[in-house]
Amino acid sequence: MGGDNAPDMVLDGLELAAERHPKARFLLFGDQSVLTGALAKRRRAKAVCSIRHAAETITNEMKPTVALRSRQSSMRLAIDAVANKEAAGLVSAGNTGALLTLAKIVLKSLPGIDRPAMAGIAPSARGDVVMLDLGANVRCDVRNLVEFAIMGDAFARTVLGLTAPSIGLLNVGAEEMKGDDTVRQAAEILRASHIGPRFHGFVEGHDITAGTTDVVVTDGFTGNVALKTGEGALKLIGELLRQVFTRGIASKIAYLLARPGLDRLREWLDPRRYNGAVMVGLNGVVVKSHGGTDAKGFAHAVDVAMDMVVHRFNDHIREDLARIGLDKRSGGDKNEGDRRLATA
Amino acid sequence: MGGDNAPDMVLDGLELAAERHPKARFLLFGDQSVLTGALAKRRRAKAVCSIRHAAETITNEMKPTVALRSRQSSMRLAIDAVANKEAAGLVSAGNTGALLTLAKIVLKSLPGIDRPAMAGIAPSARGDVVMLDLGANVRCDVRNLVEFAIMGDAFARTVLGLTAPSIGLLNVGAEEMKGDDTVRQAAEILRASHIGPRFHGFVEGHDITAGTTDVVVTDGFTGNVALKTGEGALKLIGELLRQVFTRGIASKIAYLLARPGLDRLREWLDPRRYNGAVMVGLNGVVVKSHGGTDAKGFAHAVDVAMDMVVHRFNDHIREDLARIGLDKRSGGDKNEGDRRLATA
Repeated sequence: MGGDNAPDMVLDGLELAAERHPKARFLLFGDQSVLTGALAKRRRAKAVCSIRHAAETITNEMKPTVALRSRQSSMRLAIDAVANKEAAGLVSAGNTGALLTLAKIVLKSLPGIDRPAMAGIAPSARGDVVMLDLGANVRCDVRNLVEFAIMGDAFARTVLGLTAPSIGLLNVGAEEMKGDDTVRQAAEILRASHIGPRFHGFVEGHDITAGTTDVVVTDGFTGNVALKTGEGALKLIGELLRQVFTRGIASKIAYLLARPGLDRLREWLDPRRYNGAVMVGLNGVVVKSHGGTDAKGFAHAVDVAMDMVVHRFNDHIREDLARIGLDKRSGGDKNEGDRRLATA
Repeated sequence: MGGDNAPDMVLDGLELAAERHPKARFLLFGDQSVLTGALAKRRRAKAVCSIRHAAETITNEMKPTVALRSRQSSMRLAIDAVANKEAAGLVSAGNTGALLTLAKIVLKSLPGIDRPAMAGIAPSARGDVVMLDLGANVRCDVRNLVEFAIMGDAFARTVLGLTAPSIGLLNVGAEEMKGDDTVRQAAEILRASHIGPRFHGFVEGHDITAGTTDVVVTDGFTGNVALKTGEGALKLIGELLRQVFTRGIASKIAYLLARPGLDRLREWLDPRRYNGAVMVGLNGVVVKSHGGTDAKGFAHAVDVAMDMVVHRFNDHIREDLARIGLDKRSGGDKNEGDRRLATA
């Protein structure tokens, strides 16, 4: 029920997802009559979806503390389904803060992970870049940053399919003495860890779009601002280019001539291609779709969740945490084995 | 002597500056024989420059602590000239860390300012935006952010010439409860201050390029990353567009047709137009030019310094600090009265 055009946008997205992932089955959480009606019109989605009625809905304006009180919301029931292994993962386009809070309380962190984070993918000159934290943790300590690096590494291997991703720690300069004690100590631990050979060291803001490393690690405040600043800059240029190509006959002809290239560029930068922020570090797979996305974007968020389930994202993190020795405990959750996803 | 192509780049910049600011006089600090030879070839600059010999030079690789030991470096002597009122301000394309450290120690902070910051100008959909801190202070407290807002406001009035700039505090969301105690308390103080009616509240990363407010206030870590991420995104698009317009005959013809508009766009986004980060909060005007800029960029940094001197930037800050009552003391420095600038 989450997202600006839910549930139609979600179901159209599942039409696409059903085609791409023929073995996947989906549990739909929300108002039964609304979902039944909407599903009747979508042949492919209907064949792979089961509806689970939820009497309540978490709105976008609801504070996480209020959302927590509702035990029958579609979001809560979908998270419960992940917790009791009925679903292998969850995709939601709903209230981000509520989803993160509910997921942390119901699913809990992976053993050894202090704080789950939000990870996402951004375009760069050298291919896709994984960035985290995107805003789950406003302030972070050394341990958080090291855990983010481990989770970002696992993400790049399972979702981007890289065999040996390079990791960078975001800072105000590339030299070792730059930044504060938090980033310097995190860099020291990472350099000495099993990630060490692939740890590039500090990277700067411009390294994100340059693609200097496959993974960029930072605290949630800086990551959120950097992501939105980059998106804002791309949007500004897009608007200015539109002005250039609509002013005068010559420019309009120019647009027609350059259109194939410009269309490829637009497609490559299409935010829907990067939709799906992942809440990493939880005992289960939770992917947050942008609320304003469309079917194509939602289907991409489902792709991300499928990659994480199929390639056993959390197992990678568990193994790596044991290797880095921040915490010796090891988890026992195996709920990513099957391919049923919940959508709320 | 600072900058990739110094002193030629600096002197070519002064040729331009001398034309734009006919009443300005410049003190050049550096190797006398080198500067004399270089100045002989530049008629306009020669007429307005006096050379002050400096036996030593601060290199880009030098740590601030090492730079501090040199009492005869061109950078140190230029800062001394500002301190003893021989110069009204300083423009340097040299080592940023050394310049900031030397300026803080020799010039000292304005009375009532806890920590000087670096401020700069960025392009937005609605005109130029002032942003600070760009990296002078990696971590900041409530007081620092409030002071940055006051200094950013004075900057927007004196350099951008705005009569009533709007001020935004960078955060991970626009709602009042977002972020941590530091930004929330800073927002509360600003809301209650004389800036209050012009305080927009929290802004997000995309608001920088959208131009939601004229001034964007943040800590040095986030500001540095946001600035470089935005620059990186613009650079990435520039490179991709170059590829679009050089691939195939049709695209090349398209480029020729759209060229006037594309050239205007390139000119508007030209980093040289935004060159000149200002070290605000010091007892004197200090402008840092990018080391890799050219004459046009350096001349712009001189423009910024001239605006700050002529429109008495520091007097504005002093008045506003007294009004906001963070500190009751008031400074007595009056060294911005004349129009002689030092360049190192």
